[in-house]
Amino acid sequence: MITRETYEQAIQRASKVLEATGITITPAEREHFEVADFGLSDLDHTGLEIIVYINTERCCAKELVMFPGQTCPEHYHPTIDKVPGKEETFRCRWGTVYLYTAGEPSPSPACRPPVGSEPYYTVWHEIRLNPGEQYTMHPDTVHWFQAGAEGAIVSEFSTRSRDELDRFTDPRIQRETTIVPSAQKS
Amino acid sequence: MITRETYEQAIQRASKVLEATGITITPAEREHFEVADFGLSDLDHTGLEIIVYINTERCCAKELVMFPGQTCPEHYHPTIDKVPGKEETFRCRWGTVYLYTAGEPSPSPACRPPVGSEPYYTVWHEIRLNPGEQYTMHPDTVHWFQAGAEGAIVSEFSTRSRDELDRFTDPRIQRETTIVPSAQKS
Repeated sequence: MITRETYEQAIQRASKVLEATGITITPAEREHFEVADFGLSDLDHTGLEIIVYINTERCCAKELVMFPGQTCPEHYHPTIDKVPGKEETFRCRWGTVYLYTAGEPSPSPACRPPVGSEPYYTVWHEIRLNPGEQYTMHPDTVHWFQAGAEGAIVSEFSTRSRDELDRFTDPRIQRETTIVPSAQKS
Repeated sequence: MITRETYEQAIQRASKVLEATGITITPAEREHFEVADFGLSDLDHTGLEIIVYINTERCCAKELVMFPGQTCPEHYHPTIDKVPGKEETFRCRWGTVYLYTAGEPSPSPACRPPVGSEPYYTVWHEIRLNPGEQYTMHPDTVHWFQAGAEGAIVSEFSTRSRDELDRFTDPRIQRETTIVPSAQKS
């Protein structure tokens, strides 16, 4: 869970990054900025700030804002009842993002999992994306990603997004974010 | 048709617009910059400059660069043999773009068709997109669009793109661009 205060601060911080890099969002989009802590209550280390531009039955586009070193935890998009899982292309717009997926493990990966979550990071084939570079992740492929030291903005182009179907390696993860009043947590 | 010189100049001009607005493309993408004159040999008025980021069986993302007043001619994406036509979302990133589609004609539209092509522009319901604004075009919907006075950058998020299936109102149009040596045209 995150507090209302953390939520508001994250939106403000992410909005500033978008603005500084010339990516314009509407006031309505800012209203619906998604802040995902994946239920771990440690947004600075495990989390994503997401603007969903469009998500129809057929396709989806998002902007992901990542704070420095922030990690999207390991997961995959399953094929269910012969319906292919989500296919997604990550395109780095600003900063650096490191993707990890199945394949030959990189001998000296640039990233480390968030402290305390090490057992839930199992794939180590590293793909580094600088601005303008992209990578397409196919359904049923385990992956996670982490922003570099500056943070990152990543455009995601995909088939329909159904977050509730995502399967995470870490059983503690809850995909939906719970926001509590700021006083409640103290 | 366009000459190699026109093609190279268009790429250079479009690349500068992308660079000025902070949108990074790779050298390989610049190599494959698509310049479409739609067979009318009048690129400044009828044309598009296109970077295809990704186009799989399931989804597609492009960046469209439009010069001031440049027009993408009227067309639609047909449903064929019960396979739904292309669905596309246009998101203005920079400049202004005016979309025209079926519906209540706008009483004083901001745009005019390219001179000599007036008969082939038949839908006049105007949607103006400023940076951060977007509109989703459904299959089988006739539409055309024109950049404002500054030009525009438009992100297109869509289902698979199959340009060869597009149906244009203007029978003169050829979707594939023919590039001839610069000397040949003079």
